[in-house]
Amino acid sequence: MKDIDALCINTIRFLAVDAVERAKSGHPGMPMGDAPMAYVLWTRFLRHNPANPYWPGRDRFVLSAGHGSMLLYSLLHLTGYELSLEELKNFRQWGSKTPGHPEYHPEIGIETTTGPLGQGFANGVGMAMAQRYLAERYNRQGFPLFDYNIYAIVSDGDIMEGVSNEAASIAGHLKLGSLVYLYSDNRITIEGSTELTFTEDVEARFRALGWHTQRVDGYDLDAIEAAIKEARETKDMPSIILVRTHIGYGSPHKQDTPDVHGAPLGKEEVIATKKHLGWPLEPEFYIPDEVLTHMRKAVERGRELEESWQRLFDEYAEKYPELAAEIKGIIKGNHPSDWKELLPQFSPEDGGVATRKASGKVLNSIAEKTPFLIGGSADLAPSNNTYMKGVGDFLPNGVGRNIHYGIREHAMGAIMNGLALAGLVPFGGTFLVFSDYMRPAIRMAAMSGLHVIYVFTHDSIGLGEDGPTHQPIEHIASLRAMPNLVVIRPADASETVTAWKVALERKDGPTALLLTRQGVPVIDRAKYGCSSPEDLEKGAYVIADCDNTPELILIATGSEVHLALEAWQRLKEKGIRVRVVNMPSWELFEMQDKEYREDVLPPSVRARVSIEAGSTLGWHRYTGYEGVTIGIDRFGASAPYKILFEKFGFTAENIENEALKLLEKMRS
Amino acid sequence: MKDIDALCINTIRFLAVDAVERAKSGHPGMPMGDAPMAYVLWTRFLRHNPANPYWPGRDRFVLSAGHGSMLLYSLLHLTGYELSLEELKNFRQWGSKTPGHPEYHPEIGIETTTGPLGQGFANGVGMAMAQRYLAERYNRQGFPLFDYNIYAIVSDGDIMEGVSNEAASIAGHLKLGSLVYLYSDNRITIEGSTELTFTEDVEARFRALGWHTQRVDGYDLDAIEAAIKEARETKDMPSIILVRTHIGYGSPHKQDTPDVHGAPLGKEEVIATKKHLGWPLEPEFYIPDEVLTHMRKAVERGRELEESWQRLFDEYAEKYPELAAEIKGIIKGNHPSDWKELLPQFSPEDGGVATRKASGKVLNSIAEKTPFLIGGSADLAPSNNTYMKGVGDFLPNGVGRNIHYGIREHAMGAIMNGLALAGLVPFGGTFLVFSDYMRPAIRMAAMSGLHVIYVFTHDSIGLGEDGPTHQPIEHIASLRAMPNLVVIRPADASETVTAWKVALERKDGPTALLLTRQGVPVIDRAKYGCSSPEDLEKGAYVIADCDNTPELILIATGSEVHLALEAWQRLKEKGIRVRVVNMPSWELFEMQDKEYREDVLPPSVRARVSIEAGSTLGWHRYTGYEGVTIGIDRFGASAPYKILFEKFGFTAENIENEALKLLEKMRS
Repeated sequence: MKDIDALCINTIRFLAVDAVERAKSGHPGMPMGDAPMAYVLWTRFLRHNPANPYWPGRDRFVLSAGHGSMLLYSLLHLTGYELSLEELKNFRQWGSKTPGHPEYHPEIGIETTTGPLGQGFANGVGMAMAQRYLAERYNRQGFPLFDYNIYAIVSDGDIMEGVSNEAASIAGHLKLGSLVYLYSDNRITIEGSTELTFTEDVEARFRALGWHTQRVDGYDLDAIEAAIKEARETKDMPSIILVRTHIGYGSPHKQDTPDVHGAPLGKEEVIATKKHLGWPLEPEFYIPDEVLTHMRKAVERGRELEESWQRLFDEYAEKYPELAAEIKGIIKGNHPSDWKELLPQFSPEDGGVATRKASGKVLNSIAEKTPFLIGGSADLAPSNNTYMKGVGDFLPNGVGRNIHYGIREHAMGAIMNGLALAGLVPFGGTFLVFSDYMRPAIRMAAMSGLHVIYVFTHDSIGLGEDGPTHQPIEHIASLRAMPNLVVIRPADASETVTAWKVALERKDGPTALLLTRQGVPVIDRAKYGCSSPEDLEKGAYVIADCDNTPELILIATGSEVHLALEAWQRLKEKGIRVRVVNMPSWELFEMQDKEYREDVLPPSVRARVSIEAGSTLGWHRYTGYEGVTIGIDRFGASAPYKILFEKFGFTAENIENEALKLLEKMRS
Repeated sequence: MKDIDALCINTIRFLAVDAVERAKSGHPGMPMGDAPMAYVLWTRFLRHNPANPYWPGRDRFVLSAGHGSMLLYSLLHLTGYELSLEELKNFRQWGSKTPGHPEYHPEIGIETTTGPLGQGFANGVGMAMAQRYLAERYNRQGFPLFDYNIYAIVSDGDIMEGVSNEAASIAGHLKLGSLVYLYSDNRITIEGSTELTFTEDVEARFRALGWHTQRVDGYDLDAIEAAIKEARETKDMPSIILVRTHIGYGSPHKQDTPDVHGAPLGKEEVIATKKHLGWPLEPEFYIPDEVLTHMRKAVERGRELEESWQRLFDEYAEKYPELAAEIKGIIKGNHPSDWKELLPQFSPEDGGVATRKASGKVLNSIAEKTPFLIGGSADLAPSNNTYMKGVGDFLPNGVGRNIHYGIREHAMGAIMNGLALAGLVPFGGTFLVFSDYMRPAIRMAAMSGLHVIYVFTHDSIGLGEDGPTHQPIEHIASLRAMPNLVVIRPADASETVTAWKVALERKDGPTALLLTRQGVPVIDRAKYGCSSPEDLEKGAYVIADCDNTPELILIATGSEVHLALEAWQRLKEKGIRVRVVNMPSWELFEMQDKEYREDVLPPSVRARVSIEAGSTLGWHRYTGYEGVTIGIDRFGASAPYKILFEKFGFTAENIENEALKLLEKMRS
């Protein structure tokens, strides 16, 4: 090994060791073991520009084994990103740019949030699908604008998690040649040797999944270089390199033990390790000048790479101005809005329309004007109504905008995040009940503020005969509990149009559309007052009212709104001053000012009834503990949906009776 | 094919076809395609006793492809279980025993709830681990009491879902030879041919996972028989047989198309299919007498099988009375309670004790007296404190009661369900934030009323430096939203002991224990009044109070209770009549009578403050919409936990200030 190489590798190792030691917390073992392969990748292959981490032509790097965050932070600092040595010294401290696990911060070169295992692996597959899409749509003869690679370092944990197998199966099927994954095969997990629980033939599994595989010694730099080269040149299948590494490499007493995975080495072992690897004990966070000089070459190299790409793009822009404009929009996540004129309209004459069907109509109306919109379903497209006619399918041999995820909800969620990271707007469909299968990916989207759209249909017992295994109960509440996720449950076809508008315009986080399987009437608003489907944007609004202040408020969402309106009619006829509040989105409502919120729900009116075919958890926020919450706090049942709605109390009669009982109670 | 065989197979097919047709809903394609393999399995291999579905020596059958429920219902009826033809005619109707997807009903031979894909596959792995445990613990020379097999029919969807790969990897690692899976390789999913999205080499993948594999034609009964025989005789590895089937077999226009997957054939196609397979058009639900006679042989055969097993067991009971008693307990889920005397005690002198550590102490105190208790962690045993010393490890070459699940939370959840179905009480640990990875399995446990225990540690931002990717926020609320799941967040070490007692005694559903990473003081109850850690059983109780009715109530859970107690002290000194309610479990509290609940939370006291380091969603149920909910409705941050608690407002000072502001507001 050349001296400079060894020097750089040890610098990376000990920046991690010292940072973890100072923080008294973190994971030193992985950076110590993986520094060599990371060094080879970053200095001999990775095409990036530390001065502009947003350069669209860059290769992507994903540290799926997010617990090794100090490896990434060290590389970013050494290659010249906006991440100071001070930040490394503040590892895991309040307000630092160096949290325990990497969090999506493109401005300093962190491409995605990782830590929950398997997520980064699958994000990379989404990034590769985005690359394939951009390349096939925009590359032209002589203009290879989007021929970048997606590199990742993945760990035993990433490989064990089911989501990575789902994603790897799709990647192999789609022959995503831009993927080059380095699997740090260190054979140690927290509980001990992988012999305890993980003895499968990983290489054979990935071959079976259609991946190109190689094995290499993690400390033979030239072998690593040769393997990455071969992987990069393999264009017709994704590549994984099984790199035999040793966790905690260089630690005399802790190498190849779980002790070094998630805890500081300890003062004495740090000294022993530095001595063992011939590293000066002082100062901490030592960076030899020649190391900085060598690693910082990335800045100059990056500048040249981007400049030549930019020249290419400018030429391209002259030749293909429209395509270039499209590209700029996607890169900046700044999409045209001419699709709005194409949004469909619905009217009461349309009769009963399932909101999932309305959603499908929206998608098909705007598809041609939304090249940034790409999506599909986890094998439920015909039921989710997510198929866009006329824009082609995303297949191994040609790229359209309809993705077939297969029965792999979790991979779908994580792949959507990868697509969004490239500036595309992905949507993904499944039954609401199966949102559970993809929750960890939804959480990553919410935490990273990604613009993704979930199409969750069959949103209640209203799906009928399939029964409780397929009927969401707790799901609406559990999605509402997630920070930065906007949940929208439109009341009818017209509101579904607005819901899509909101979802397409909301860029700083994910939006979940909850849609019915069963038909629901398109509300004849004229009959009840002057509301508009556009009012959905405010999250909640008065859809039917009375003269003077109401004495009773009915609050409903989705398919229960028209029942509330029927109950309103009955109660009105009994001379009760009743208001109906349609509340499709709690999150949007809470974004309104206090005045509006108290105008819709006057604090003085304590007689309140909520109606939603799901868990009542959370509804007391709006009904108070004296109010009535009509919902479902048990599992559903298998039967035709009309019978279920009756049995579970979702009828105008029952709403009326509950309301009358409440008024009675309040008066006494 | 022999006439009687063909006759039986077509009977199974058309019972499914007719039932789906009558229900106008369901999945006919799978039963039509898979009837032959199911017939061979049930008539030539399956050791079961329709007259006593509880016979402990029986083979288990799992229909992982639960959408093919009519296949199972037909087999159960034909072989003589308590499932009448009337029930088949009531397929998917309100109150029937034949819901859209199979629901756990041992009394009629339904071994587990399936439908959500991948769950049944992984349940079977848990059943096989239970079989291995029971066999190694209780079988004796000449007494092969527990040598039964676990058979399953799995579909493309089961194989695509990540959870099945996780479970298959464990099964291969543990060499679970009792597993015999039939994979219905029909190459059709809802969106179309598997060519669209699923072209991996499934056989090679399973070989890589350590499975014995075979391929066979789904319509060659002798070949199927030979394959199952070989699989059953393969004792040193799990077996999967790739059975090439044709969805909708026999339907002239719909065989091998997605149309026949999830919808009735339609009147005309039913006629065409019956003609094509030479089946009488009338009557519907036709069962030839010779078919019933042939299939019902299962009753006599089953009686003999159980009788000879019973004779064996009686002999065994004389030789090994203690073991026999243990077995009876496990079989009936009726476990001894002598472990209670062994529960540890904690006192304020113990200082700060993390509730996860207290939990570990409980487990290790009772381990020797709880042979029915088996569990582990998804590679976080040292952090979850789930390891039981002295009771061995569950490994390929020997069975102890510590399971190493690897980094496979979802499989852990589904395997736990399989273990519980055998009468064992499984516990499983991971970080609370990763409960998301196993939610679909938790839901199945709750729906099936299984006695399983989740040990979710690191239950708030209190985990500190690992940061937001590892800090649960929405998880407490989203678990509370799930029906029949009891969630317990003990305030200190002493309450953790009671929490375990509750979890071990609650048999009709799962219990989740939410435990701290950080130390929390063992509350000195004498200082505050006369409460006891046993009061946790009531879900919520007054832990500190005032004379006369309070004017303010502080409600807290887990690690926030001691902060509420500090605030109580401060407020008391200001002359405020304040009460602290410790509310470790909403579900247990709601099971108490109204009188008790209103005694703890008098409706007249409107000034209420809730304190919990998680989403505020749901808390208004107890605070009303006027109350204050101190919680976290954003994602966390990476820093030492004491700093986080301060920054997020979890200090006695902040609680005091919020309370004073609220009183102010209420008075004005």
